Amino acid sequence: MSYNLLKGKRGIIFGALNEQSIAWKVAVRAVEEGATITLSNTPVAVRMGEVSALAEQLNCEVIPADATSVEDLEEVFRRSMAILGGPVDFVLHSIGMSPNVRKKRTYDDLDYDLLAKTIDISAISFHKMLQVAKKMNAVAEYGSIIALTYVAAQRTLFGYNDMADAKAMLESIARSFGYIYGREHNVRVNTISQSPTMTTAGSGIKGMDKLIDFSDRMSPLGNADADECADYCITMFSDLTRKVTMQTLFHDGGFSSMGMSLRAMDQYEKSFDQYRDDKGNIIYG
Amino acid sequence: MSYNLLKGKRGIIFGALNEQSIAWKVAVRAVEEGATITLSNTPVAVRMGEVSALAEQLNCEVIPADATSVEDLEEVFRRSMAILGGPVDFVLHSIGMSPNVRKKRTYDDLDYDLLAKTIDISAISFHKMLQVAKKMNAVAEYGSIIALTYVAAQRTLFGYNDMADAKAMLESIARSFGYIYGREHNVRVNTISQSPTMTTAGSGIKGMDKLIDFSDRMSPLGNADADECADYCITMFSDLTRKVTMQTLFHDGGFSSMGMSLRAMDQYEKSFDQYRDDKGNIIYG
Amino acid sequence: MSYNLLKGKRGIIFGALNEQSIAWKVAVRAVEEGATITLSNTPVAVRMGEVSALAEQLNCEVIPADATSVEDLEEVFRRSMAILGGPVDFVLHSIGMSPNVRKKRTYDDLDYDLLAKTIDISAISFHKMLQVAKKMNAVAEYGSIIALTYVAAQRTLFGYNDMADAKAMLESIARSFGYIYGREHNVRVNTISQSPTMTTAGSGIKGMDKLIDFSDRMSPLGNADADECADYCITMFSDLTRKVTMQTLFHDGGFSSMGMSLRAMDQYEKSFDQYRDDKGNIIYG
Amino acid sequence: MSYNLLKGKRGIIFGALNEQSIAWKVAVRAVEEGATITLSNTPVAVRMGEVSALAEQLNCEVIPADATSVEDLEEVFRRSMAILGGPVDFVLHSIGMSPNVRKKRTYDDLDYDLLAKTIDISAISFHKMLQVAKKMNAVAEYGSIIALTYVAAQRTLFGYNDMADAKAMLESIARSFGYIYGREHNVRVNTISQSPTMTTAGSGIKGMDKLIDFSDRMSPLGNADADECADYCITMFSDLTRKVTMQTLFHDGGFSSMGMSLRAMDQYEKSFDQYRDDKGNIIYG
Repeated sequence: MSYNLLKGKRGIIFGALNEQSIAWKVAVRAVEEGATITLSNTPVAVRMGEVSALAEQLNCEVIPADATSVEDLEEVFRRSMAILGGPVDFVLHSIGMSPNVRKKRTYDDLDYDLLAKTIDISAISFHKMLQVAKKMNAVAEYGSIIALTYVAAQRTLFGYNDMADAKAMLESIARSFGYIYGREHNVRVNTISQSPTMTTAGSGIKGMDKLIDFSDRMSPLGNADADECADYCITMFSDLTRKVTMQTLFHDGGFSSMGMSLRAMDQYEKSFDQYRDDKGNIIYG
Repeated sequence: MSYNLLKGKRGIIFGALNEQSIAWKVAVRAVEEGATITLSNTPVAVRMGEVSALAEQLNCEVIPADATSVEDLEEVFRRSMAILGGPVDFVLHSIGMSPNVRKKRTYDDLDYDLLAKTIDISAISFHKMLQVAKKMNAVAEYGSIIALTYVAAQRTLFGYNDMADAKAMLESIARSFGYIYGREHNVRVNTISQSPTMTTAGSGIKGMDKLIDFSDRMSPLGNADADECADYCITMFSDLTRKVTMQTLFHDGGFSSMGMSLRAMDQYEKSFDQYRDDKGNIIYG
Repeated sequence: MSYNLLKGKRGIIFGALNEQSIAWKVAVRAVEEGATITLSNTPVAVRMGEVSALAEQLNCEVIPADATSVEDLEEVFRRSMAILGGPVDFVLHSIGMSPNVRKKRTYDDLDYDLLAKTIDISAISFHKMLQVAKKMNAVAEYGSIIALTYVAAQRTLFGYNDMADAKAMLESIARSFGYIYGREHNVRVNTISQSPTMTTAGSGIKGMDKLIDFSDRMSPLGNADADECADYCITMFSDLTRKVTMQTLFHDGGFSSMGMSLRAMDQYEKSFDQYRDDKGNIIYG
Repeated sequence: MSYNLLKGKRGIIFGALNEQSIAWKVAVRAVEEGATITLSNTPVAVRMGEVSALAEQLNCEVIPADATSVEDLEEVFRRSMAILGGPVDFVLHSIGMSPNVRKKRTYDDLDYDLLAKTIDISAISFHKMLQVAKKMNAVAEYGSIIALTYVAAQRTLFGYNDMADAKAMLESIARSFGYIYGREHNVRVNTISQSPTMTTAGSGIKGMDKLIDFSDRMSPLGNADADECADYCITMFSDLTRKVTMQTLFHDGGFSSMGMSLRAMDQYEKSFDQYRDDKGNIIYG
């Protein structure tokens, strides 16, 4: 199904790894909606492979780049403008990784070199992308830039670790740079706060399956999946949302506005089943 | 320009008064995008006139109704389903009025009968609309319901008076009912928090022109206008935003995320021009 | 333990019913801290009894009043000023009730006459209290006014029903009136958003025990109890918090800033115990 | 005036520079309220001088430390426990500095090495402080830890630059670590979001005087000053606020809850005085 919402638009999608990736889905949908795009991911991710298959499928080019490198980012924008024939209209930042989580360091035992890496990869890379783009005049007037975030930026979820602080900083960068980019070039900058999604990145987080189950039962519409997120990104790249900027946009089936749902509480209550008296009342310890 | 985003969809637009109205623009855009709709407004508003002209232009029917009357709302949904051939896919609530503001009662001298009316017209009417619709099964699965709100629901703006409290309650109703409607019928309920807009309703508010100027200078993208708001509503009615619910969505050029902009401060600073010493420093009183 | 934080201050406590009441604890602590106070509750509540015992214990007077009646409120302030010897320095509003909840009307089947009562009792009574006080000049310069609220004003908790909308409006009134009262008399107006508390009012809510258990496990410090809430109110009435106004202050052991805790998730996970395969993985339905 | 609110408590105050410093005022008030404390600041700040005078005045010791150094922080906690005779009950983090601001780099031309320093000094130092304290068991059960922040963490103010992102991360750290420290030791962690204050740090920011004027006119109670902030910190260190955690507490005269005040708008309007027609209406360009 296509509406031609992005007809004639040019874009860059950072972070597509494989078919589970949100960025992958956004790339596919953007092309369906009439855009021409380039893809970018780290050299390792590109070598490992599936991004090239996606590029072939979409008939577009992959530009390997380390998003923490200003030079690499300059190259991505330079080549994208050359390939696509002008400044881009939209950019997706779907990049995040915590070496502390990978090394199983808990939040009260962080390695500070690794924390600096988490922040550099997951938050500052977004500032670099914006600063490089603005200096190179690589985003067209009324362009739209989106980074993916998670509710942990605003409320604590155990196990999300230093990624919570990185996402909080990411959302702040969207506001801070969104002010300047909006004022000077009418470019809007937003973050989309997505339901927990079982991507390759998501699957690395401890207890992710239980969290996803809880999140799904808390959300009146259930968790949003990667395909739905791609649809939402398309609307934010389109000309129909030109005055939305500096926002954290929750795309999460309602989770962020819930305190407790009946469905999650029903499930929660079952946990007490073995601790009930003969009248069915919970016996508290 | 049409994308056929609402092709085959049915909708009801409450609150179109004249060409300045946001609801008017939404109606026009919804039809352009392929929807069939009905219009509703108060009997007085309908008699006074321009709604009928809009209905003629869009080849749709007007159903007069007092949105504070459950019976009237039932009639709107009943007739709309009959006319449009089934349950509706989207609803716009663009209704709000403060008799205290009209009577020039200040917020520390409210008339409580009038306050009850402000709340009934501007907030509870939305609950009635939702409750009636749900009981009549008048909104299709995956439908989308929007009410218009203003940032005063969350931060105080002098002169907005008891409308601030009404809008706060309106946003709460969107969350409370959004939970139930989502859980049971996958219907999403959101509010759009729009820039101050010089509609007939907006023009009644004291000092509106100065406020609009300040708001425009504070917002990096400038104030959003009624046409842009209509575009945004279309995306929220479309199938591309199915997992967004229970949110207050700011459509305001960035105002809600600003503390102070350079442009507003430059203007603000001019106010001190006559109070400067010979070195150009401001002389504070 | 007393710090004399309220030495020489005068106050009015609305809503003490019995020893479980937060207002009761606040009254006791305020007197311990050196304040002289009056108590007020509805005529029915006063007749039913325990408030008089509290008044005797604290050597203060009870002024029966319906807080939805402007005349009654005027009488409370008039008599309090006469008894206490001048305008008051602090006021506690601990008033809330939903006839819809009592009548077991669900949120999608509200009775609108009862909704008007919920709003009048639980939200508008606060505006009336503030407006009456300001008109009578019954609160001293730098006074402090607090109303109790709940996180449901901002996030949906099933079963809290129309009280959520009332509390949202209550928090808005605190902001709206706080602006005016601050600007003109340096009086601060805040709401305290308290953990679910097993008071007589709280015990009427469906599934309250399970909700309290969940809330306790979600909150890193556990739920805040009524005694702790009283302590917190004392700090907000004292001269040490004179520049805090128009805020919703969370006193909830951290609940409002949590997305998911390990302790709540551990309990949640137990609910799946009977649905595990032989490797211990959850079998999803 | 003393209430003995901190009688018998031990604390560490980071960041007192001179009499204008908020940390200086907090140190003075903490001792007045019965606490024994140590002071810490950078070796340079200590050498430059006034901290020693404060230490003498309060009869306490200064422990020079670079708050970005884990080893230095360990030394501060080790010596403080030795000097004070046990684990501390409260800590104030009043540390922040942006080398990008000092070098007059604008936000769209940041130097990334300097950004890493801004983040390390202004945000990560707080994590280090918390992690070191927890590992050393240097904060007593039910202790209270506060860091100072600014509304720019949540809304953009031109010129605040990369400090906005640092403060956003700081507030996130307070939540993330507050969850763990609360759960395991009942220690609460909060940030206080203070009005712009003309300290030595504040005076470096461009256009600070105009911003302070605007902020003062927007805030119904006016800007909060350093003395008032110290009073508020005392309440948060006391035993009366034991269930408040993971919060950003606004101490700002109401600024954070304002959209527009009459007083600020009156001033703003004067800026148009020379652009009026003979009827007094503003002539827009």
